[in-house]
Amino acid sequence: MNRKAKAERKGTFRKRRASDRTYFVIMAGGKGERFWPLSTELVPKPFVSITGKKTLIELTVERARRMVPLERIFVVLGREHLPAARRCLPRLPHGNFIIEPVGRDTAPCVGLAAMILHGRDPDAIMVILPSDHYVPDPTAFSRCIRETVKTAGHGDHLVTIGVPPGRPETGYGYIKTGRKVSAPRDADCFEVARYVEKPNIARARRYIREGGYFWNAGIFVWRAEVLLQGLKYHMPDLHAGLLRFERALGTGDKDAADAIFAGLPRVSIDYGLMEKAKNVLMMPAPFTWDDVGTWTSLLRVLPRDDTGNIVRGKTFSIDTTNCVIITDATPVATLGVSDLIIIASKNGILICDSSKAQEVRQIAKALGKKQ
Amino acid sequence: MNRKAKAERKGTFRKRRASDRTYFVIMAGGKGERFWPLSTELVPKPFVSITGKKTLIELTVERARRMVPLERIFVVLGREHLPAARRCLPRLPHGNFIIEPVGRDTAPCVGLAAMILHGRDPDAIMVILPSDHYVPDPTAFSRCIRETVKTAGHGDHLVTIGVPPGRPETGYGYIKTGRKVSAPRDADCFEVARYVEKPNIARARRYIREGGYFWNAGIFVWRAEVLLQGLKYHMPDLHAGLLRFERALGTGDKDAADAIFAGLPRVSIDYGLMEKAKNVLMMPAPFTWDDVGTWTSLLRVLPRDDTGNIVRGKTFSIDTTNCVIITDATPVATLGVSDLIIIASKNGILICDSSKAQEVRQIAKALGKKQ
Repeated sequence: MNRKAKAERKGTFRKRRASDRTYFVIMAGGKGERFWPLSTELVPKPFVSITGKKTLIELTVERARRMVPLERIFVVLGREHLPAARRCLPRLPHGNFIIEPVGRDTAPCVGLAAMILHGRDPDAIMVILPSDHYVPDPTAFSRCIRETVKTAGHGDHLVTIGVPPGRPETGYGYIKTGRKVSAPRDADCFEVARYVEKPNIARARRYIREGGYFWNAGIFVWRAEVLLQGLKYHMPDLHAGLLRFERALGTGDKDAADAIFAGLPRVSIDYGLMEKAKNVLMMPAPFTWDDVGTWTSLLRVLPRDDTGNIVRGKTFSIDTTNCVIITDATPVATLGVSDLIIIASKNGILICDSSKAQEVRQIAKALGKKQ
Repeated sequence: MNRKAKAERKGTFRKRRASDRTYFVIMAGGKGERFWPLSTELVPKPFVSITGKKTLIELTVERARRMVPLERIFVVLGREHLPAARRCLPRLPHGNFIIEPVGRDTAPCVGLAAMILHGRDPDAIMVILPSDHYVPDPTAFSRCIRETVKTAGHGDHLVTIGVPPGRPETGYGYIKTGRKVSAPRDADCFEVARYVEKPNIARARRYIREGGYFWNAGIFVWRAEVLLQGLKYHMPDLHAGLLRFERALGTGDKDAADAIFAGLPRVSIDYGLMEKAKNVLMMPAPFTWDDVGTWTSLLRVLPRDDTGNIVRGKTFSIDTTNCVIITDATPVATLGVSDLIIIASKNGILICDSSKAQEVRQIAKALGKKQ
């Protein structure tokens, strides 16, 4: 694009309101191992109802739906999960499911979506949302996303959301903020000093004490064009691969396209782009957020019943405390137990000490091989 | 029966070998509450496989089958359990199922069987067995029962089996022995000093220290005629009621017969007869025996696997110790748990601390009402 064309483009998107060119991209990959036996390889976490009656992806689409029409909500997912996704989202236009031929982590996923959206609308602003987060206050969430969209939509920044840490959590990555800047349209935000891997508990405590650390929520907002430029500069292999993928799809050679996608580097967008780019901003998120990464996290986010347990389905408990008990059909009775995760579905029955929920993956893997 | 007839009778049974006139009566009543969710109201404990692949009643019939042909094995049970019983015992002659119109504890049950057997064979020797006991060595069991049959078959005694207590058990009743006697045919046995209700742990320990105490195993051997005489003397109401019941059945008036049975006193044979009769003997049982009264008792009697658990069905365990895990279809995975009873069936899923298995009844009752 030459300088004149660029100036024209800039003129165009300056005229269109940010809200009219906002697209949500919901990433729905994942293997469904940590929420076994409710989630499985074929029906992973986003497509099961874990926190309530609705599935996590339904709740995510509903949050997006408060800001844009369904036509501007896209879901990126593996081909094998399409049936489960359509069951959850019967009203989403079929063309809005973007199929990843194979899962290659978030950088190829986000790049693929950016290329498709940019092709449709060169002024597109993308809001990237994971499909499996717990956000109990959608109004606060919308307010924050709208602000962020304004910031990202009128500039050349890669904007990420940072959640103020409510506890010394060792399960999340952190963002250390740098200089506070007044972004376009006066929303307060920060430059990013550095990204921090999941810390140990001592470091996590220090982060809270020191301040200036935020949880990396995996929510991003940027113009599709800015993202593609970032990929071209920082991940040229990925960018070139995506162009070849697009060309192969254009000729109708699906097998060639699949092979190209499978050859893309397996890199997260955080590692591949965000940690390297200089035009990153972080917006603090004034909403409650949780990753709901394991069964145990439900004990943190869901309301307890009178006896201190979280129960769903037919259950009967005597002398039972601090348990998560979820059953989809068969009645579950507990007697004299505490601190257990008990999940029953037709796929299997899990009984797990609540401190061990991280290891449920091992079970899902082992049983997956056996079954 | 006048004196002459009595003398003839005595002559008759003295001529017939005890083993040829031995009949087993297996008592298969019970509500199936303590082994929920494998056992249920319709399929109580004797009719489910708890200790292995075979049901407890199948194992009981097999033990009897080592001593007598199937034709001389009778099962007393409620009408509602007949389908389950026939499924377990397809080769038992249909006429050998004795239907109790309603459960009225063991005295009416035993009296009913005695009346029927005495009608068929006035010389009948009855071996009364509960249907749900754990006897891992059927050879030792047979040897003991054969000895007892000889003792009971040639005399006028009510003989009961006493199991030497292997531990200070508080869940069983005890028999305190009196004078040691050499019974007919030289088998050593004891008079009974008194029956003792389930003791507390201090008393149970004292019984073992002092000696002379045996577990009351609920196994009885006697001639049908001796039993009926005992009932006539110590429980005349029951005896008269059974005669009326027999007459009503004879006229084909089933409803009247049922009503008469329902009016019989609800008394155990221990309380109603054994504690009062003077002609009681106790044979010590040189075989391993357990009541398998609760899920926790399985931890005592069944062999553990390499990881110290008792498992049946598809299970997968990590960091799991001292648990009973039984599933009839759905795979069960455990992670970081110990001392739990985990039972999964289509009726329900139980997760219970192993010290609380006595209270499973409450769950079965509560869920029975709900369902």
